Parts: sequence; structure tokens; C-alpha cells
Amino acid sequence: MPQGKVTTVPQDGLTTRQRRRQAVLAVHTGAGKGKSTAAFGMALRAWSAGWPIGVFQFVKSEKWKVGEETALKTLGRSGGAPVTWHKMGEGWSWIQRPGTERDHAAEAAEGWAQIKRDLAAETYKFLVLDEFTYPMKWGWVSVDDVVATLAGRPGTQHVVITGRDAAPGLLEAADLVTEMTKVKHPMDAGRKGQQGIEW
Amino acid sequence: MPQGKVTTVPQDGLTTRQRRRQAVLAVHTGAGKGKSTAAFGMALRAWSAGWPIGVFQFVKSEKWKVGEETALKTLGRSGGAPVTWHKMGEGWSWIQRPGTERDHAAEAAEGWAQIKRDLAAETYKFLVLDEFTYPMKWGWVSVDDVVATLAGRPGTQHVVITGRDAAPGLLEAADLVTEMTKVKHPMDAGRKGQQGIEW
Repeated sequence: MPQGKVTTVPQDGLTTRQRRRQAVLAVHTGAGKGKSTAAFGMALRAWSAGWPIGVFQFVKSEKWKVGEETALKTLGRSGGAPVTWHKMGEGWSWIQRPGTERDHAAEAAEGWAQIKRDLAAETYKFLVLDEFTYPMKWGWVSVDDVVATLAGRPGTQHVVITGRDAAPGLLEAADLVTEMTKVKHPMDAGRKGQQGIEW
Repeated sequence: MPQGKVTTVPQDGLTTRQRRRQAVLAVHTGAGKGKSTAAFGMALRAWSAGWPIGVFQFVKSEKWKVGEETALKTLGRSGGAPVTWHKMGEGWSWIQRPGTERDHAAEAAEGWAQIKRDLAAETYKFLVLDEFTYPMKWGWVSVDDVVATLAGRPGTQHVVITGRDAAPGLLEAADLVTEMTKVKHPMDAGRKGQQGIEW
């Protein structure tokens, strides 16, 4: 757990204060649970810091994130920093349906185009690109474009990308990579998803 | 990612509806980031489900969780389910200071005693026992007592325990175990903790 102690001090000419304000690109990957959940947990901190939050949900059925959406939107309406929730994946399912791949690809590309516009405009200070590894994996969004765009984003915009099978180029570009590993899951024992826990 | 598909159906005589309402014990462990963050993300879902939430913070300096505390307390005041935040660790530091271990042990034991009372009274429906692995690791709280108490908790009380080095007995008792593995961290490159990201 970080204690604010660094192992080396970079020769980048920055002050500690400046280094505390660098933009972070985080990737949550791996086959375990908690990738998106931890990203939304990070959004709690970002919201408390007064940062406008933008969530872009790719791929997954919205049913799985309705709790987080309700809670974060409630925070956004509470008088603090605004929370904006984009569901590119509305109508999508986790498993691709035959014959709809072209539509999904176009929708993913449109989502990424909007993210690029928002990064250029510095619309948000904290962005969750939820399940965004999959459009990259499926070739719908160019990894090189994502990496180059994020490398050149202006200001201090923190970005968290979640999903399995993150591309090596994305991991290379990330400042923080955490892999969530499934050790044990109740589904393995034949238990059903629990309301309030799984969604 | 769970799809509500189970690999085996247990012969427990329960309906699907009943199995969806079983209490879950989750453990987030490993050396990576996101253990607590994912637990607080789960609390978003639980709050949206209308469940009273109790957070018990062990060990860590409160500075690291102030963002989550602010945000979840804001939710608790918004008219939905209440959120109660207990900081047993207030005044504690991550690194034990010489000569204070006895006080910390007593404080940890008091915290666990309160959790046992709250479990018996069903005060909450979702409990985060943050960094609770450490008092167990250090022998301040009995793993056997924790496992037995949780096994016998009444009603449907979901419990998430976070921290490194979770005891084998606790992992055995858990329904869901996720290990967070550090793949890359900005501190490795000499970067400082980022406000809004690290705390």
C-alpha cells in the first residue's frame, strides 16, 4: 500500500506538488471481479475531490452497473461535482449476437470519437472507460489511437480503463495496472448472483 | 464475468430466489491496489439496493479513505439507506509505532466486539471490514472467532473483508475471494501519490 514513499526520485525537473498533479492512466484487468467496481470506487474519491466525472460504459448489459449508476448519479445531483453517465453499450449484451457485430463496432467507434472530443475539451477530470478493453480487443477501436490520444491529452485528466485482456500497448502506456484474479467465486459452488452484490 | 450461469446446481433444496438472497462473505486480498476501493464500489450497489451500510476501518490512517468516506456519507444523507462509518483505526498508522501495540490490540478487539454486537442485532445489511486482515494477522483478533461468528450470523448480512495476507481459514470460509495483484504502479517510477487518486 503506497505510503507516499517513492523508490527513486525522477530527474524530471518537477516539484513534488507538480508530480502530485500528474494525470494518471490506470488499467484494471484480469479475470477476477472488482475491475469495474474498483474503478467506480475510485470515482468516489475523484468526486470528493470536486472533479467532474464522466463514465463511458462499453459492451456490458446495463443491468450489471445499475447500482453504481444510481449511486454516482445521486452524488452528482447532491450539489458536488457533476457525474455524467454514457451507455454506449445500451442494448448490447455480454455475448455478441450473430449479425449485429457491425452495429456494435460502429457504436464503439462513435463512443471513442466522443471520448476524444471530451478529452480535447477537458470536459471531465476523471473518466471511467468501463469494459473499454473489449472494443480494442475486437478491433473496433485502434489501440494505437487510444494510446496516442491518451498520451497527448491536455491538462490533468485521470482515466481508468477496465476489462480483461488489455492490449500490451495499453499496459505499457498505463501508469497503474492492477490485475484482479479470481480465487474463489460463489458461482463455482452453484450459487446464483446476489442482488445488491452482483448488480 | 458472471452471467448468472452456474456450473452446478447445488442440492440444497433452495429456490433460485432463495439462493439469490444468501448472505455473501467476500475477501479482497493480495498486494495490489483496489482491495478497499472495490469494497467501497460494492457499497455503492448495496446502497442502491436500499441496504443500511456499516463501514469499520481498521489500522489505516484515515487520510487514505477520506474521499470514500465523504462520498458514502453524502449518499447516506441523501434520503436513501443510511451509511455509518466507524474509524477504529483513528490515530493508528500503517506502520506500527513502538510501544503502542498493546493499545492497538485492545482497540482492534473492541472493534471486533462491536461488529459482533452489530451482526447479532442485524444493524446493517452490508458491512465493510476494511483492513481487517491485519488485526487477525497480528493475533489481535482470533481468526477462528471471526469465522465462527460470520458462519453463524443471522439474516442476510453481506460482509466484505479487505487486506493483505488473509488467513487460510478466512479464505476457506469466504464465498468470494479476489486477489488484487500489482502489475505496475506509478510509485515504482518515482511518482508521488496523486490527490483524488490515491486519497
